[in-house]
Amino acid sequence: MAIEQLGEIVKDIHPYITAIHLREKQKTARELFQTVELLTKNNIPLSKIMINDRADVALVLGARGVQLAFHSLDAASVKENFPQLRIGSSIHSYPEGLKAKEKGADYVLYGHVFQSQSKQGKIPKGLEELKKLSNLDIDVIAIGGITPDNTRQVLQEGANGIAVMSGVLEARDPLVAVKAYSKALNKGGE
Amino acid sequence: MAIEQLGEIVKDIHPYITAIHLREKQKTARELFQTVELLTKNNIPLSKIMINDRADVALVLGARGVQLAFHSLDAASVKENFPQLRIGSSIHSYPEGLKAKEKGADYVLYGHVFQSQSKQGKIPKGLEELKKLSNLDIDVIAIGGITPDNTRQVLQEGANGIAVMSGVLEARDPLVAVKAYSKALNKGGE
Repeated sequence: MAIEQLGEIVKDIHPYITAIHLREKQKTARELFQTVELLTKNNIPLSKIMINDRADVALVLGARGVQLAFHSLDAASVKENFPQLRIGSSIHSYPEGLKAKEKGADYVLYGHVFQSQSKQGKIPKGLEELKKLSNLDIDVIAIGGITPDNTRQVLQEGANGIAVMSGVLEARDPLVAVKAYSKALNKGGE
Repeated sequence: MAIEQLGEIVKDIHPYITAIHLREKQKTARELFQTVELLTKNNIPLSKIMINDRADVALVLGARGVQLAFHSLDAASVKENFPQLRIGSSIHSYPEGLKAKEKGADYVLYGHVFQSQSKQGKIPKGLEELKKLSNLDIDVIAIGGITPDNTRQVLQEGANGIAVMSGVLEARDPLVAVKAYSKALNKGGE
């Protein structure tokens, strides 16, 4: 997706979401910086922007935080050196979640829960592990194949929130889609 | 080059060099971290290690600094947010050198000066631009095709130091090679 297109979509939907995670792994630091500049020009608050992997880029921009994967720096090292940043750890199992909590991550991004477009052919992790994770004292954001229809189930299994890619960005009308998710989330919280 | 082999070479040669610039662009943050750990296990001081592009990795490791390229974060932003780090900017012309100085880089890495193995087919930048750069009030490290034989000429044209890749790492005996460079550097400084 072109940066400009992303900017247009996010401009409309950001009031309905708590965070935008820039996952662009192929982008250089300079390109990431420029992407975030374009988002902030579209009135998207820095406090909602999470940067993938690069704590330095997040710090320089004043973004909300950094999303760490297996190939990233250790969450404990990032927390110690970048206390300003909110730290998310991407995990795929309960043991990884436990480790992330011990390392001081502020939340975990767990998935993929269901079959999803971006993980085609890979077996989804399912809801059982999510339930186990919900017993850890850390926020769990579920990702992967989440639709407005199954959002409530995901929350009932213990997720504190959801993350969505194609469900919003590839929707015919992203604003309509994000509102449908928002409605499902609020119902689930009742 | 395998990390272990690099560790073995650097263990021998580091007393003769002032900095090791880890250029591994394909390495993840985690791999860079592990590479530096291996170097420090081989008694190579962190104060000699410069990390490519990733200020976050340099900070977390306590390395000497970060080497920034065009695709990296802006030198001024890095300097402001990472005052602990020494900042080098990779440049290819006098105007780029001027900009790097204005942005607060601690030194510039200028090249490639001569034909070099790693820039085959590209026209070298030559010594004239180096002479101009030497009039800027910033350290200029020359890179590209530098041999013990032409080191003195490079210093005479105004370089404050040299950086070498294949001339040492691909030498039959890297220690002999680095001593030859060291000798040429000391002669040049007389």
